Order: sequence, then C-alpha cells, then structure tokens
Amino acid sequence: MAALAPYAGNAHVVGLTGSPGVGKSTTTSALVKELRAEGKRVGILAVDPSSPFSGGALLGDRVRMGDHALDEGVYIRSMASRGHLGGLAWTTPQALRVLDAAGFDVVLVETVGVGQSEVEVAGLADTTVVLVAPGMGDGIQAAKAGILEIADIFVVNKADREGADQTRRDLRGMINLSDRGPDSWKPPIVSTVARAGTGLDDLAARLTEHRTWLDESGELVRRRTKRARDEIEAIALTALRSRWGQVGHSADLDALAAAVAAGESDPYAAADRLLQALG
Amino acid sequence: MAALAPYAGNAHVVGLTGSPGVGKSTTTSALVKELRAEGKRVGILAVDPSSPFSGGALLGDRVRMGDHALDEGVYIRSMASRGHLGGLAWTTPQALRVLDAAGFDVVLVETVGVGQSEVEVAGLADTTVVLVAPGMGDGIQAAKAGILEIADIFVVNKADREGADQTRRDLRGMINLSDRGPDSWKPPIVSTVARAGTGLDDLAARLTEHRTWLDESGELVRRRTKRARDEIEAIALTALRSRWGQVGHSADLDALAAAVAAGESDPYAAADRLLQALG
Repeated sequence: MAALAPYAGNAHVVGLTGSPGVGKSTTTSALVKELRAEGKRVGILAVDPSSPFSGGALLGDRVRMGDHALDEGVYIRSMASRGHLGGLAWTTPQALRVLDAAGFDVVLVETVGVGQSEVEVAGLADTTVVLVAPGMGDGIQAAKAGILEIADIFVVNKADREGADQTRRDLRGMINLSDRGPDSWKPPIVSTVARAGTGLDDLAARLTEHRTWLDESGELVRRRTKRARDEIEAIALTALRSRWGQVGHSADLDALAAAVAAGESDPYAAADRLLQALG
Repeated sequence: MAALAPYAGNAHVVGLTGSPGVGKSTTTSALVKELRAEGKRVGILAVDPSSPFSGGALLGDRVRMGDHALDEGVYIRSMASRGHLGGLAWTTPQALRVLDAAGFDVVLVETVGVGQSEVEVAGLADTTVVLVAPGMGDGIQAAKAGILEIADIFVVNKADREGADQTRRDLRGMINLSDRGPDSWKPPIVSTVARAGTGLDDLAARLTEHRTWLDESGELVRRRTKRARDEIEAIALTALRSRWGQVGHSADLDALAAAVAAGESDPYAAADRLLQALG
C-alpha cells in the first residue's frame, strides 16, 4: 500500500447504487461501453450480491458483461458484501487503491441500494449515481429515506416507460427542497433506456462535469480526506481488536467481558481498563 | 452504569424481528398482553422506524398500544435506529441495562428485519424471535439470507391464511438442514393469529423454554459475555475516536488523513502512527 500511494489519486471513483429491478446491471454495462468508446479504461468493483458481476445472477437474461469479457481495458472484481473482517470499510478501499494505482481512468463501485453497505460505499466514491425506475415507489422512498443526501447524479432508467415524467418531477421536487445554497452541486437527472443504449452519453458527460466541479470546488480533497480518515480508523481499530484478543494481555478483553456479564463490573470501567493497558 | 451493574442480569431479553407487513406490531402488542396476564413486567425497546412504538405509524389501524398505555407494568422506550454516535451498539445496551436493573422480567427489543441493525440487535438479545407471514417470499428469502442463523424461535403469524402450511414446511426444511448437533437448540415454529390473540400463550411458553435451555446449557453466559465484549469495545472505540479528533494531538487523525489523501502517506503507515501515539 505504501508503494502504491504515489500512483493513486487519479482515477474517478464512481459509485452506482439502486434498488433491485431498476436495471442497474444493464445500466452499468451500458455505461462501461460508453466510457470505453471514449477511450477510458474502466475498473469495476461489484459489491452487490445480486449483481451479475459478483455472480449472483450469472444466468439472467440481462447479463451484458459478455460484451466486455475480452476487453483488456475493462477489469472486473467482485467483492463479498459481508463476512469480511471489518466489512466493506476494510476491504473496498484497498481494492480501490489498487485499481486506481493501476491506471484505470474510472473505477465503478456497484452496490445494491438497501441498507448500510450502500451508504458505506457512497462514502468511498468521488461521485455517487443513484438509479431509479418509473413506477417503483421503492426507489423514491429510498431516495426520501436518505439516498437523496448521497446522490450526486440521478438516473431515471427505463425512461420510455409510463410514469417516467412523474418520477422525474418527484426527484426534481426533492432536489429543489434540499438545495443547500448557490455554490453547492445540484444533482442533475439523467434519463436512460440502458437496454437500448440511450442516454449513456449524457450520463458520461455529467460524470465528467461532476468530477470537474469536485476539483474546482475543493470538494474532491474534502471527500478523499474523509475517506482516508475512515480507512485509517478502520485499520487502527482492527489492529487494536487483535491486541485485545491476545490471551494473557494485562487487560484481556475476554476476562473483562466475563466480569461485566457476571455483574462484577460495568462496561465503562472495563473500557477504561482496556484503554489504560494500551500505553 | 457502575451502580446498576449488580442489579442487572435478571431480565429475559427477547429480540423480535421481521419484515414490514408480517404483523410485527400486532404480535408484539399481543405478546405483551399475554406476558402481563402471566404477571410479568415488560419493558419494550422499539428500534424499528416503522413501529408504532417508535412513532412511525401512530395513526395506523394496527396500533394496539392503547391497551398498554395505562398499565404500570409496561414501559415503552423508542430509539432512533440511526444518527446516534456509534449506532445501536452504543445506545441500546445502555437502555437494556437500565430496564434490566429496574426489575422488568422481560425486555422486548423490537426491530425491523432488514439490514445490519437487525443482526446487531439480535446480538443483544438472549432469545431472538423471527416473524414471518404466509405468502411473503421476502420472509423466507430473508431467513435464507442470514436470519435463520440468528433465530431461536420462528413465528408464522397470520397462520389462518392460505399458504401457512407451506411456510411452516419451508421453515422446517431449513431448520432441519441447519441442525448443528444433538445438544443444540432446534428453533420451534409457533403459529399465531396475533390480531385474534391466538397462539401467544404458545409463544410465551417457548420463550420460557428457551430461557431455561440458555441457563442450563451455559449458552446464556456465553451470549452475555459476547454482548459485554461488544459493548466494552464500542465504548473504548468511541473514547479513542474522540482522542484522535483532538486538534494539536501529536498524531492528529485529520492531518494523517490529509497526507493520505494527497498520496504522501498510506493508510497503514498512518494507522501505525495513530496507534503509537496512544502510549
């Protein structure tokens, strides 16, 4: 990681998220095609258990990655979204840094838009794209519930379907309500029909636009510093956990836990002892 | 907390979880009624944003807590499921300990069965009850996806509906497949029609049965030690975070993060410096 550090920092890290059924896989694949047509090398981290990239739906009729299988400008790595030590916060940044240092122009992090992991991954991206589809109340609900704050770009996929206008209006209304001032980024709404390859050029253009804004506003440095902070903490905490687990340690966590469970101590006193023993 | 420690440890902490729509609120309320009829004092921690206890659906026609509003043997506390420092792992154990030390016989922790918070809360309970309903593929999917491992008791609510037999068969099949040996607890399946008050006596009996098994098998001590361990860690880590945030600290986390973001350092080296500065 020390050797990679000087080479990292050039890739545009784009997070893609959305509820199942919005056409996320198709859109991701179509976006990869568009970026390749622009000559960009693309790395993909798939942390979505239902994604074809991570193997969840390999036989589905929407799998388009055959298009990219033989393309040397595309690299795909699937990540288990749970079961890892420390979760996504621990493994994803490392994989990101490797792809970044390897010279990919864009790294797409694809994740499913439910629960905590999605917000975690958004914290790792320079630009977060939230996909919704017409007629999916879920998408809008999710947006209301917290995805709105993390979205830099909205994509209304399946934009040829009935209800697409209404979905765009709903999103526009929410964006206007949450406007944070004249200098802040106002998330654009891009309409796509990923299956037909429509609208991806617009999405690619908006990605570039957002990256430029990030650079010029100082937001890129702010986001990446936040990301580095989280990563340093995750590494330090993992190291501490392993120290605390050592048998025979003067403040063995297991012994402290047993005392608390038996009502002989309380967790605050135990935490104090743990911290004192670090010196 | 130190003063409470000697008085805690007597309550039976029961986690209740299930997807929206399975009748969780109705079941919880009917269970409270049953436990009250048995003379038990009941504390309720509602960490489900859609729960009537936490205010998410106060006007819904399923709100039954009017039954308990004037009962001094019932105490209800709603908890925000996000936005708290350290999340549920930080706030819920403290609230649990207070209710425990206050002498409640049963403390019900109610949470919605999606995502990480549900698994976190299961870690806090002595006994975890997972609710499903017939015809909800979601419930079974969730069970397959990880809830099976945390369930001590399954409740098939709305058991008078079509498909209830099939749901029970599916659950039974999964339980049999996951059987872990002759001495392990085999989750029973309880059928309820919470709206009509049917089956709650059976559920209450199974809860008592599981609590007895926990005591006799030594599993109660194991689970509570694990819980204490997690809580001690959460407290210690929160204290560390606050130290690392101090301006002027010799290994200021913000300064380290800025160096990593600029490519001048890597997160592993930064984490090392952070840990060295703790001494």
